[in-house]
Amino acid sequence: MDTANTKPPSGMRDFLPGEVKAREKVFGQVRAVFESYGFAPIETPAIERLEILQGKYGEEGDRLIFKVAQRGAKAGEEADLALRYDLTVPLARVVAEYQGRTGKIFKRYQVAPVWRADRPGRGRFREFYQCDVDIVGPEFGLADAEAILVLTEALSAVGLKGFEVRLNSRKVLRGLIESFGVDPARETDVLTALDKFDKIGGSGVAAELRERGLEAATSLLAGVSGPEDELRRQLASSEAGRAGLDEVDRLIDLVGPLVSGGRIAFSPLLARGLSYYTGPIFEVYMEGSTSAISSGGRYDGLIGMFAGRQIPAAGGSLGIERIIPLVAAADEGVVSPARVLLAVWDADSRGHALGLAGQLRAARIPAEVYLGDDRMGEQLGYASARGIPFAVLRGPKEKEQGTVTLRDLATREQTTVPDEDLVAELSRRLSAR
Amino acid sequence: MDTANTKPPSGMRDFLPGEVKAREKVFGQVRAVFESYGFAPIETPAIERLEILQGKYGEEGDRLIFKVAQRGAKAGEEADLALRYDLTVPLARVVAEYQGRTGKIFKRYQVAPVWRADRPGRGRFREFYQCDVDIVGPEFGLADAEAILVLTEALSAVGLKGFEVRLNSRKVLRGLIESFGVDPARETDVLTALDKFDKIGGSGVAAELRERGLEAATSLLAGVSGPEDELRRQLASSEAGRAGLDEVDRLIDLVGPLVSGGRIAFSPLLARGLSYYTGPIFEVYMEGSTSAISSGGRYDGLIGMFAGRQIPAAGGSLGIERIIPLVAAADEGVVSPARVLLAVWDADSRGHALGLAGQLRAARIPAEVYLGDDRMGEQLGYASARGIPFAVLRGPKEKEQGTVTLRDLATREQTTVPDEDLVAELSRRLSAR
Repeated sequence: MDTANTKPPSGMRDFLPGEVKAREKVFGQVRAVFESYGFAPIETPAIERLEILQGKYGEEGDRLIFKVAQRGAKAGEEADLALRYDLTVPLARVVAEYQGRTGKIFKRYQVAPVWRADRPGRGRFREFYQCDVDIVGPEFGLADAEAILVLTEALSAVGLKGFEVRLNSRKVLRGLIESFGVDPARETDVLTALDKFDKIGGSGVAAELRERGLEAATSLLAGVSGPEDELRRQLASSEAGRAGLDEVDRLIDLVGPLVSGGRIAFSPLLARGLSYYTGPIFEVYMEGSTSAISSGGRYDGLIGMFAGRQIPAAGGSLGIERIIPLVAAADEGVVSPARVLLAVWDADSRGHALGLAGQLRAARIPAEVYLGDDRMGEQLGYASARGIPFAVLRGPKEKEQGTVTLRDLATREQTTVPDEDLVAELSRRLSAR
Repeated sequence: MDTANTKPPSGMRDFLPGEVKAREKVFGQVRAVFESYGFAPIETPAIERLEILQGKYGEEGDRLIFKVAQRGAKAGEEADLALRYDLTVPLARVVAEYQGRTGKIFKRYQVAPVWRADRPGRGRFREFYQCDVDIVGPEFGLADAEAILVLTEALSAVGLKGFEVRLNSRKVLRGLIESFGVDPARETDVLTALDKFDKIGGSGVAAELRERGLEAATSLLAGVSGPEDELRRQLASSEAGRAGLDEVDRLIDLVGPLVSGGRIAFSPLLARGLSYYTGPIFEVYMEGSTSAISSGGRYDGLIGMFAGRQIPAAGGSLGIERIIPLVAAADEGVVSPARVLLAVWDADSRGHALGLAGQLRAARIPAEVYLGDDRMGEQLGYASARGIPFAVLRGPKEKEQGTVTLRDLATREQTTVPDEDLVAELSRRLSAR
């Protein structure tokens, strides 16, 4: 018999019960915060038509879209389906499709996996969850503040403290491009280079700008890294620059007093790679880390690409795969949700064990019957290894007496309990834990 | 501005908040039953390597696997990734990969979407959820009984009654093939034809058998549709047939007294399309329906294809997409999880509203701030349309008095409440509902 390669595909992961439990706890905390703000869940398919996704994520993003072959596609035929790359573009499609149902203001969250065909070995996942909140409808203002507040409250809820919200506006960046005399048609190239500042530093960004023939933008880089009052003076010369500063200042006024567990600051270097942002943009960092744990912004143009009219929107996402390792409990391995194991003495005891399990479950005690025909020691070992706290044993003696033996697997203490008292006794012991 | 095609791909669906809520309720009930039996959740990637999936689902199944292109794959190159087609083959891969961690007996559930490249327009979904329970390790016996019990209890829990469990064994079918002198190499063809009995009737199956050159199997068809005692006599002539009957009889003895909400019966016609079953197989039907709402069986050979040694297993799945329309509440549309809307009087009131919302959430009252700058009537209409029961209004008069106006959106009754009493008053009213 062959041994096949049974690893998941590179960049993708299996989660065994202990890991699922730890992840679900974090997802549950995040969902609870999202719902406490009135965000409601939607679900969209994993697969989108390719034309919906293409052209929304910038040149690098487009290359990372996983393509899916239609049934019966000929070799060499272009794929016209793809796996979703994020949750924002599918939201934009949904808003365009169901405009009559979603209403003038639509607040939704979605917690779901996305897929990116990143190169294996870059240490990135190719399947990972996103947790998104978005507010569709309102122009700049409260909605932008709420996006930041709900995400930072979710960070606090999962147990993170001491983070920094870096805030900028695409209009600030546009203002810089105008005021430093950079060709506005090259805006995307400038932003793509600036976005790498944290990873490759100022000299790296300057080199990349020169490489792209953007010598003029190196003075922009100097301005943006310099003192804030000089930068503000520079921006005042451009209408976009003034509008961007106004957005940043108003948001800091609204959000600043309310951000729990962290602080918020103007960060003119912040660019964000995605091409669809139009207004305020933000990223959240843990102190000392160069990887954002949350990010978002306003994207007033994206939904219009699908809806036939402009519909403003703002929102953001938690970098949940980075957050989970920071806050999750240690992996408990293969745990069982059962609170009691019904050991099985012999083949004749099986029907009784199944029936007793039903009685326990009816009393809301998760109960597991041992399904193999192994010796008692192995049955008890199974329960211990899976974190099941109690076992019920019923051999010939107990059967004759109308009792069972209740064993506490931690203390190894055993008690004889009359059949009719077992449910009450177990309920009592479990609620006392 | 163009209007794009914003529908989801054919055979796939978007779910708006009311639908997600209804679906999540059913999934939650199912998960609770699975966990009450000690099944623990695992997660596997949506994408598997194609070689893991191919050859496990029969010839028709293989054609329905969605293929995923690797990054940078040349046009015409064969795909080596694919979307998961069910949750059983990924489980088999996981058990093979983590044998040391999953132990001698491993009970897992998984609730997750799967993808099948079915032809559009056949009224089938190409993305749909499955809810699977499986028991890896034990030989035939209690495990097979538990698979049926946990699934039928889940059916009862979601509100279904009056269903029928049809039980057979692949060994019964093998016995029939032997005893009627059909070429054993053609077993798959016979099962594929038999599997269509409910849809195309006995004459349809007979025609298909003849078409496939299986004239001999038409007498098998007659036997299997005839009186049960004659069939049992026929089966007694084959070792596989006797073993199969024994499995069926023992399972009916164990499970029969415990199936809640339905009944179980030997159904020698039952074949099941998937090629990996080796022992008992079952399907559950609502009375009068020809579509199974649950199914499963024993597959002792599948995990061995990956593990390098035989590992027996049994389990089953709920046809949850068929079940949800039978039990789900009517779609409530775009609902909000918030219990109170904080209306916003003017731009100066925004900061106060954000702060008050925080106080309410801290008291576990989901609270939503109105994020647009619309008139009060529209703000209240927003709350009513989304099922938010209360609104808090705070105009210049309330601001001066240190009060708010609390409005019940169903009765339109309004009460003046001092600022400091709002949280307690809302808690009281919400807990009284």
